[in-house]
Amino acid sequence: MAESSASFAGCLLHFAEDEAIATRAAEAAGLQPLTIERHRFPDGELRLRLPPALPARVVFWRTLNDPNEKLVELLLTTQAARTLGALHLTLVAPYLAYMRQDIAFNPGEVVSQRIVGRFLADLFDAVITVDPHLHRVASLEEAIPVPDAIVLSGAPVLADWVRQRRPDAVLIGPDEESLQWVAQAAARHGWDHAVCRKQRHGDRAVSIELPALPVKGRTVVLMDDVASSGHTLAQAARGLLAAGATSVDVAVTHALFAEGALALVKSAGVGEVWSTDCIAHSSNAVSMVPALAEALRQLS
Amino acid sequence: MAESSASFAGCLLHFAEDEAIATRAAEAAGLQPLTIERHRFPDGELRLRLPPALPARVVFWRTLNDPNEKLVELLLTTQAARTLGALHLTLVAPYLAYMRQDIAFNPGEVVSQRIVGRFLADLFDAVITVDPHLHRVASLEEAIPVPDAIVLSGAPVLADWVRQRRPDAVLIGPDEESLQWVAQAAARHGWDHAVCRKQRHGDRAVSIELPALPVKGRTVVLMDDVASSGHTLAQAARGLLAAGATSVDVAVTHALFAEGALALVKSAGVGEVWSTDCIAHSSNAVSMVPALAEALRQLS
Repeated sequence: MAESSASFAGCLLHFAEDEAIATRAAEAAGLQPLTIERHRFPDGELRLRLPPALPARVVFWRTLNDPNEKLVELLLTTQAARTLGALHLTLVAPYLAYMRQDIAFNPGEVVSQRIVGRFLADLFDAVITVDPHLHRVASLEEAIPVPDAIVLSGAPVLADWVRQRRPDAVLIGPDEESLQWVAQAAARHGWDHAVCRKQRHGDRAVSIELPALPVKGRTVVLMDDVASSGHTLAQAARGLLAAGATSVDVAVTHALFAEGALALVKSAGVGEVWSTDCIAHSSNAVSMVPALAEALRQLS
Repeated sequence: MAESSASFAGCLLHFAEDEAIATRAAEAAGLQPLTIERHRFPDGELRLRLPPALPARVVFWRTLNDPNEKLVELLLTTQAARTLGALHLTLVAPYLAYMRQDIAFNPGEVVSQRIVGRFLADLFDAVITVDPHLHRVASLEEAIPVPDAIVLSGAPVLADWVRQRRPDAVLIGPDEESLQWVAQAAARHGWDHAVCRKQRHGDRAVSIELPALPVKGRTVVLMDDVASSGHTLAQAARGLLAAGATSVDVAVTHALFAEGALALVKSAGVGEVWSTDCIAHSSNAVSMVPALAEALRQLS
């Protein structure tokens, strides 16, 4: 293995379920793809096994939807990697977890963004992610204080995809926070855009106020960074169709889609749902692999 | 709350599902029991909330069967506790996870005991547990390098329970590693004891060689620190009954019992299964709460 790996700038470690996407990324970045073996004992504990000798530069590929067990895996495998020769560890987390709880909304609430950010910064020398859901902190380095933090966006590739299918789209964001993605994608192709105003009454209860921008007779694309429960998108879609939109499609970076969420969105009259491959999902339409591989090449 | 908590030597934090046992322990240890609120978002992330003001001394009550998510909870809640006034954190983990993988059995294997031990030592100032499954390390401090590490054993309370129900028992351990518990319990009541020899061929495939000690016509109690898949206990029980034992019952500290494990043990002819309440289970017969509360009082 030492000879065949000599031409690589390092290795990219992944789990078996990510083999296809991780291998494409590794090849595009000039890294050797290697698998982490995982065995689950009957009591729920994990036995993890890395390649027995690692190069100085090691990249971990792990998207962090459903994050809790994955965070423990990262703890175990990064610490082991450092005993097996790794000197510089990069995390590629196309989706990054626990970025939303960035203040204590009520006294005593755990500010999980800061704690998970510090935890990841202790494990890694660099972090690469796509559209982290940051509100009140300005940069990823503030949330995850690593020497190198690279943030990519799914908006350009989603915009290019939408342009082929809905060339005359008007882009609408389902809430104020989506403005950064909607504005970026709209500017790329000269589209009209606006965002709804959202009031949240619980995990799954939201009310939506449509923007003033007229949508009657237009092909609308709802765009956001993440689709989770689907309630916000469904409610916005219903409102837009009631306001006379010819069609409403959805484009999101992260297809988190909790159970039943996609069906809910479709039942609201949404035509197509398009997402990037940051989280593996049936709606994946465009790939972030080229951009992630480019970021990896920039780091080395 | 400040006034009513003045008489306590600190607080004991627990989750709602552990309220009954944690409250008993807190009362016996002179600590104020307080609940950690947990909410699970549709995407699998947790929102945790601690009491808004904490005393200097805080005890976390968390048994670590099925440990991965619980380790993340401990990370989040301990770091938050230190921002809310806590200065000295104790973990009471009646069952402690990841203690078995203490060397790399194959090159590249993650030595999870060392990593989880260091992780817990970074979070806590003291750890109290019961019968941790240590093989190749001599002490809990070696596995979890905290200033204070207290190890209790379930063997005495199990032995006293067995004495009331099987006064003429012969104690048998299902493998060599169980000798420490079997010998301790047998010495307490002057019982004969011996251990089987085990060969493991996989998670659920074991072969058992019975000890030379005659069991014909005797009431046998199989004793171990932990029952997980149940295969070892089932195989030992079958062998002992075939060798003429009048009855075979089981006494274990940790009723981990993976799915189907208890039924497997029963189907092998085992009469009663008794365990401590270190892990909540239908077989719980004796309580470690008095001993754990006494250890907490010693720490303060």
